[in-house]
Amino acid sequence: MSAPTFTAVGTRPIRHDGVDKVTGRANYGADLSLPGMLYGVVVRSPHTHARIVSIDTSAAAKVPGVKGIVTGKDVPLIDAKLGMGEGALDLKDLSDNALARSKALYHGHAVAAIAATSLAAAHEAAALVRVEYEILEPVLTVDRAMESGAPILHDTMTTQARPPIEQSGPTNVAGRMELRRGDIEQGFRDADVIVEHVFRTPTSHQGYIEPHACVARVNEDGRISIWTSTQGPFLVRDATAMMLGLDAANVKVTPSEIGGGFGGKIPVYLEPLAVLLARMTQRPVKMVMTRDEVFRATGPTSATKIRMKMGAKRDGTIVAASASLYYEAGAYRGSPSGAGAMCAFAPYRIPNFFIEAYDVVVNKPKVAAYRAPGSPMAALATESLIDEIATQLGLDKVEIRLKNAVQEGDLAPYGPPYGRIGFREVLEQVRNSDHWKSAVKPGVGRGLACGFWFNAGMSSSATVTLGADGSAAVVTGNPDIGGTRAAQALMVAEELGVPVERVRPSVADTDTAGYTDLTAGSRTCYATGMAVVEASRDVREQLRGRAAKIWGVPIEETRWEHGRVEPVNPSADRQPLTVAEIAAKLSKTGGPIIGRAAVNPPMAGPAFAAHICDLEVDRETGCSRVVRYTAVQDVGKAVHPSYVEGQMQGGASQGIGWALNEEYVYNASGVMENAGFLDYRMPVASDLPMIDTILVEVPTPGHPYGVRGVGEVPIVPPLAAVANAMADATGIRFTELPLSPPRVLARLLEEAPAAVGAGA
Amino acid sequence: MSAPTFTAVGTRPIRHDGVDKVTGRANYGADLSLPGMLYGVVVRSPHTHARIVSIDTSAAAKVPGVKGIVTGKDVPLIDAKLGMGEGALDLKDLSDNALARSKALYHGHAVAAIAATSLAAAHEAAALVRVEYEILEPVLTVDRAMESGAPILHDTMTTQARPPIEQSGPTNVAGRMELRRGDIEQGFRDADVIVEHVFRTPTSHQGYIEPHACVARVNEDGRISIWTSTQGPFLVRDATAMMLGLDAANVKVTPSEIGGGFGGKIPVYLEPLAVLLARMTQRPVKMVMTRDEVFRATGPTSATKIRMKMGAKRDGTIVAASASLYYEAGAYRGSPSGAGAMCAFAPYRIPNFFIEAYDVVVNKPKVAAYRAPGSPMAALATESLIDEIATQLGLDKVEIRLKNAVQEGDLAPYGPPYGRIGFREVLEQVRNSDHWKSAVKPGVGRGLACGFWFNAGMSSSATVTLGADGSAAVVTGNPDIGGTRAAQALMVAEELGVPVERVRPSVADTDTAGYTDLTAGSRTCYATGMAVVEASRDVREQLRGRAAKIWGVPIEETRWEHGRVEPVNPSADRQPLTVAEIAAKLSKTGGPIIGRAAVNPPMAGPAFAAHICDLEVDRETGCSRVVRYTAVQDVGKAVHPSYVEGQMQGGASQGIGWALNEEYVYNASGVMENAGFLDYRMPVASDLPMIDTILVEVPTPGHPYGVRGVGEVPIVPPLAAVANAMADATGIRFTELPLSPPRVLARLLEEAPAAVGAGA
Repeated sequence: MSAPTFTAVGTRPIRHDGVDKVTGRANYGADLSLPGMLYGVVVRSPHTHARIVSIDTSAAAKVPGVKGIVTGKDVPLIDAKLGMGEGALDLKDLSDNALARSKALYHGHAVAAIAATSLAAAHEAAALVRVEYEILEPVLTVDRAMESGAPILHDTMTTQARPPIEQSGPTNVAGRMELRRGDIEQGFRDADVIVEHVFRTPTSHQGYIEPHACVARVNEDGRISIWTSTQGPFLVRDATAMMLGLDAANVKVTPSEIGGGFGGKIPVYLEPLAVLLARMTQRPVKMVMTRDEVFRATGPTSATKIRMKMGAKRDGTIVAASASLYYEAGAYRGSPSGAGAMCAFAPYRIPNFFIEAYDVVVNKPKVAAYRAPGSPMAALATESLIDEIATQLGLDKVEIRLKNAVQEGDLAPYGPPYGRIGFREVLEQVRNSDHWKSAVKPGVGRGLACGFWFNAGMSSSATVTLGADGSAAVVTGNPDIGGTRAAQALMVAEELGVPVERVRPSVADTDTAGYTDLTAGSRTCYATGMAVVEASRDVREQLRGRAAKIWGVPIEETRWEHGRVEPVNPSADRQPLTVAEIAAKLSKTGGPIIGRAAVNPPMAGPAFAAHICDLEVDRETGCSRVVRYTAVQDVGKAVHPSYVEGQMQGGASQGIGWALNEEYVYNASGVMENAGFLDYRMPVASDLPMIDTILVEVPTPGHPYGVRGVGEVPIVPPLAAVANAMADATGIRFTELPLSPPRVLARLLEEAPAAVGAGA
Repeated sequence: MSAPTFTAVGTRPIRHDGVDKVTGRANYGADLSLPGMLYGVVVRSPHTHARIVSIDTSAAAKVPGVKGIVTGKDVPLIDAKLGMGEGALDLKDLSDNALARSKALYHGHAVAAIAATSLAAAHEAAALVRVEYEILEPVLTVDRAMESGAPILHDTMTTQARPPIEQSGPTNVAGRMELRRGDIEQGFRDADVIVEHVFRTPTSHQGYIEPHACVARVNEDGRISIWTSTQGPFLVRDATAMMLGLDAANVKVTPSEIGGGFGGKIPVYLEPLAVLLARMTQRPVKMVMTRDEVFRATGPTSATKIRMKMGAKRDGTIVAASASLYYEAGAYRGSPSGAGAMCAFAPYRIPNFFIEAYDVVVNKPKVAAYRAPGSPMAALATESLIDEIATQLGLDKVEIRLKNAVQEGDLAPYGPPYGRIGFREVLEQVRNSDHWKSAVKPGVGRGLACGFWFNAGMSSSATVTLGADGSAAVVTGNPDIGGTRAAQALMVAEELGVPVERVRPSVADTDTAGYTDLTAGSRTCYATGMAVVEASRDVREQLRGRAAKIWGVPIEETRWEHGRVEPVNPSADRQPLTVAEIAAKLSKTGGPIIGRAAVNPPMAGPAFAAHICDLEVDRETGCSRVVRYTAVQDVGKAVHPSYVEGQMQGGASQGIGWALNEEYVYNASGVMENAGFLDYRMPVASDLPMIDTILVEVPTPGHPYGVRGVGEVPIVPPLAAVANAMADATGIRFTELPLSPPRVLARLLEEAPAAVGAGA
C-alpha cells in the first residue's frame, strides 16, 4: 500500500493535559476527599507463610473513631473467572489476595481492614488487631517450590498444563506450557557451536510514582461509586462487583489521573476493601497505600530462572534452541511465563526449538503485569546467547541478528505467520546509526540486544462530537498514561481537519464512556485510536449528509476529499464545504453531530526493538554506568513522536534499572528488606545519559494509520543490552541480574585479572 | 396511528438520582471547593438609575487578602448576538447586565467584582469601592416608561417592531409586535356581550431554592473550566466565551446538580465575572449569590399591564377579541411579551382578533424566562374575560370553553394549523372530574381557567452504551431538573428491554456530551428523549448486526421484535436472542456497542391545561386559602407519571403563589423592600392542599412515544383560576395581582356588602 500522508498525525503539539499536570492541578487517586469520609488502613501479615487460626478485632473496635473492621470472612466466596481464556482472572485468588481468608501467603498479605475517622485512629486500631497465626515454612524460590517435599501453598492446586501432564497430589507448579518446532535434537547435532546458560532475574517492581489510592462510596440504594488510580476502570468495576457478589450495573468507577502503572495498576487491591468498609459504615472510605505497602503487597514482576541452550552454524545461522522457563507467580497462579515462552525466540527464524514454561507459586506477593510481561527475562537469555555465539564465531552482532531475523511470512513461534513487521528495518537502522558506527571508548563495553512484543487489540469505544464553532471533542474510557489524550486529539484533527488545539479529549467514567478495555498491552493508541478514527469517520459521513442537504443532492453526490466535503459534480452553488462551514449550519441541517465507534480489532502488528548500550565499568568498585544508549524501534506510525520517544526512553530506563540495580532483597524468612526508594535503587535522571531514539515506521496493516503499540517493547532489550555490554567490557558473561556493584566486583575478583580489559 | 404499547414507559421507578438528593450527597453549585480557591463578591449599585462617573478601587485593593478587582472596563465590548432569530441573546446587553459599564440601570446592578482569599476580606473590600454616581430619575412602570418626556434608559434604543413603526429619537419601548385575524371591528359589532378590563401582574420571581453559584478556573494555557448551577451548560460556555472574546473551544462547563431554575438559570451572571477574576488572579474563583442578590439582580419575570376586550354571541361563541400587552423587560430588552401575545388566544377559535405586544424597559433587573414565559399573565386576562362572559350569559364555564376550544386543523393565532392536540379532551376530563362535579362549599368560590404553551424542540444529543452484562448507560448534556435521568433511563429500558434499574443515566459536561440545548422550554423529555430513543435504536441496529453474525446470515434476515432480535427464518440453530444474550457475546462478535443520535426536531405538540380552584375567602381579613385544586393536562405521553404529576403540582403551586401573594414590593426610589423569603411570600407545603392531577394522554405525532412538554403549561392557568375563584367567592372581579389580604380586604370594604356571598 502507498504510505498515507498526514497533516496532524506525526506532529508534536503541546499535550492537552500538560498544564494541569505540571502545575499540580491534576487530580490523582489520593486527591479526592468527600464529606464525612473515613480513612481505611490494612492490617498485614508479619509472616511469609502462615495459617490464620483466629482474628480478634474486639480491642481494635474499641478505639475511638473506629467505624468498621472487615476480615476475610466478610468477603463472599466467589468461585468464578472474569474474562475469557488464559488471561481470565481467577476471582477467588483475587479475593484471597485482597483479604486473606485462611492463609497468609506473603509478608504484607492483607488480613483485615479498618475504617476510622482519622488515619491515626485507624493505625492505632490496626496495631490492636490480634491475629493468631500457625507459622509455616516459607517457599521463596522456584527451585525450592518445585522440590519434592516442599511446603505447599495451596492444598488444592493442580498444574494447568498444555499439553496435559500427569498429576499427583497438590503442587506449587500452577502451570506449564510447551512450544516446539522441528527436530530439536537433530538441530543441535547440526550446530557448529552450542552455548548454554542458566539465567536468573530478581523480583523487581514497576516503581510507578503514585501509590495505589481510591475512595469508595456506597449509597443507601446499593449504588457504588469508586474513584481510583487504575489502568482499567471497567476492570475495576467488573472485578470489584464480581468479587463482592454485586451487580456491576450498580458500580460506577471514575478513573483519576494516574501516576504510572506499567501493568501494576491493573489488579484490584484496595477497591473491594474500601467498598466493604463503606457499605458497613455508610460513609465514604479513602484508602491510600504507603510506598512500603506498594512494595510488599502489590504485584511486582516475576523473579525467573531460565535455562537456555542455542546452537548455530559457523556462519551464524541459528539451527536449534531450547529453553526451560521458571517464573515465580508469587502467592497465586499467574506469572507471565507463557508470554515469556512465546516471546523468547520470536525475533528469529529458528527451525528447531523447544520451550517449556513453568508458572510456580512462592511466598511472595502475587505478581502483576510489568511492561511486556515476561519478555525481558526471556530476551536476556536469548540475546545473551546470540551475543556469545557471535563472539565465539567472531561475527558482527548486527549481522548475526539480521541473518536470523524474522520477516513477513515467517511463522511466529506461537503459531501464525507474521504480517508486515519491521525487525530487519530496525537492525538496518542500528547498523547505520551514529552510535553503532562510533568507536567504543576505553573502559567501556558495548552491548546490543533485541526485543519483541505482541501488542494487544481488545475492545474500545469512542465518541467524537462536533461543535457549531467547528471545534471537536473526543471521549474514551482509557486513563491517559502515556499520551492518550494528545494522540486521540491528533487523530480527530487528522480526520476532520480541525486544529488539534481545538479538539478536546476527555477520559470518562464507566457510566459515560463506552466499554473500553485497559490502558495496557500497548493497545490504547492502536485499538482505542482505531475507535477514535472510526468515530471521526462517522462524523465525516454525517457531514457528507449535511452537505448533501445544503446542496440539495443525494449523499452519493458528495465525497470527503482534501479534508472537506466536495461535490462530485461541482457547480456555482455547489462549492466544497469545510468542516467549519458545515458546522456553522448544523442546527439548520438537522441538529448536532455525534460520531461513535466501538471496535475489537485483532492484535496489532508486533513491535521489534534493538537497543545499543555503552557501559562504563569501574573495575575497582564493580560500579557501572551507562554512558551512551540508543533505542531503535519499529513504531508503526508515531502519532505524537515526542510521546513515542518518551515511551522508548522510559522503557529503556526501567530496563537499565532492572539490569543494574533493582531487586527485592529478602531475608531468610522472606521479608523484603529494601521496601523503599532509598534502598530499592531505581535509576534517577542523574544516573542516566540521554536515551537516544530512532523511530522506524513500518505501518501495521489493518490500522488506518499503521499504528503499532510502542509502550512495552522498549523494556525488552535493556536487560540483555546491559549484560552484553558488561560482557564486552569485562569479558565475563553475567547470567544473573542485577549487575549491581557487589555482584560485579565479586566476579571481577573471582575471575583472573586476564579477563579484564577484553573490551570490543 | 394505533397507540403504541409500552413496558417501561409509563411506570414509576425510583429515580436514579433520588438517594443522592435526599441524603444531601448530590453536589450543587456552591458545593465545589478547589485548592487555592478565592471567593468573589459583587459590588452592586445602590441606585435604581444612575450614570457611573468614576470607580475608585484603590482602597479596596489594599485590603489584605484581596487578589483582584474587575469593573466594566475589564470586559471587552462585544457587539454580537448569540443564537438566531428573535431568541438571540444580545451579548452587549448580557455583558452590560453582568457588569455595568456606564450606567447602573437597577438597584443591585453589578458595578464591580472582587476576589479575595476569604469572603470576609472580599466583603470588606467591596464596602471600600468608591463609585461616583450621577443619580437619574428611575422609570418603574410601563406607564411611566412610555410617557413622552420620561427618562430614557438607553440613549440609542429604538423599537424593534413587526410591522415596522415610525421612530423618533430614543425610546424605552424595546419592541412591538402585532397579531391579527379577520375584521376586529365587525367582530365586536357582531357580539351580544362585550367585556373589557385592564389587568396588572406584579414582578415575581421563580423562587428556585438554590441561589446562583459557580466556580471558574483559568489555566495558564488559557483553558477555562466552569462549574455552575445552570439550565444550559453549552449556553454558559458559548455566552461566557463570546462575552469575553474567547474561543469557546477552550471553555469546559460542568453543570452541577441544580436546585431549580424555571427559566431563571438560563442567563449568565456570575460566570463571566468569575472567569475574569480567575484569569486576573490565576486562582480558581468561587462566587455564590445571597438570596438578597438573587432577588435584586437576577431575572424575575415581567410585571405586566394588559388591556383586553372580548365579545361573544349569546350562545357563548367568542367572535372578537383584542388586547394590548405591555410587559416590563427590566433594564434591557427582552420581555416575553411576544410569547404572551401568541399564547393569549391560542386555546380558542376566535375569528376576529387583534393583539399588540410591547416590550418596555424599566429600571428593574432584566427579566428572565419563568415557566411558560409570558403566557400566565395573558391567560389571566383571557380566562378572566371568558369567565365573566359565562357569568353574564349564565353559561357553564366548561361548556363555553368547549364551544370555542381549538382542535386539530384550527389555525393557531401565530400562524400554522394545530396538529393533534388534546384541549377538548382536557375540558371533557374537567367536566367528568369529581372535583368539578362536587358541590362548592359555603364560603368558597370555584374558578376554572385554561392555559397554553408551545413546547420547544431544539438540538439534543445522546449516547447509549450496552455492557456485556446486558446493562446499559445513557449520557446527555441536560442538567436534570425535572426527572431527565429517570425519563431517559425509562426510554432506554423501553427500547432495549433492559430493566430500568440497570440503566445508568448520566449528565455530562460540555466536553463529554454532544451539543445539547437548554433544559428549558419543556423540551428535554421530548427532544433529548428523542435523541435517547434514536441512540437506543442505533444500538438495536447494531444488535441485529451481531445476531446476524452469530447466525451467519445477512442483517436483513434479522428483525427487532418483542424486545429481542428474531430471525426472519427461524431454524434450530437460529433462535431469538435477547439483548442480554447478545451482550454476553459482544467481544466475540466485534466489540462493544455504543449508539448515538443527535436531533433537532420541530417544536413538540403544544400543551393545554385546565385547572379547577376552590378558594376559601375570609371576608374579615381578606385572607384566602386554596382548599381544593385539580390540574388537568394533555401530557402527550407520561414517561414517568410521578414526575409529570410533580411538574403539574409544582407549576400550579407557583401559579397560586403568584396569584395570591408573590410580588416585588418597591419603594418610590425603585428599591425592592422584600428581598427575602420571609417577606416575599411563596406558598409552602402548609399553605396548599394536595394538588390533584388528571393526566390526559393525546400523543404528539412525530415523537416516537407521543411525548409533549409538560413542565410549563401548568403555571399558565392558576393566575386566572384563582382570580375566577375569587370572583366566584366574592362577586368581585379582581384584575390586579396578587390577591393578597390587604388588596382583597380593601375591595371587600369598598364594594357593597351585597356583593359578598355570591358563591357559585
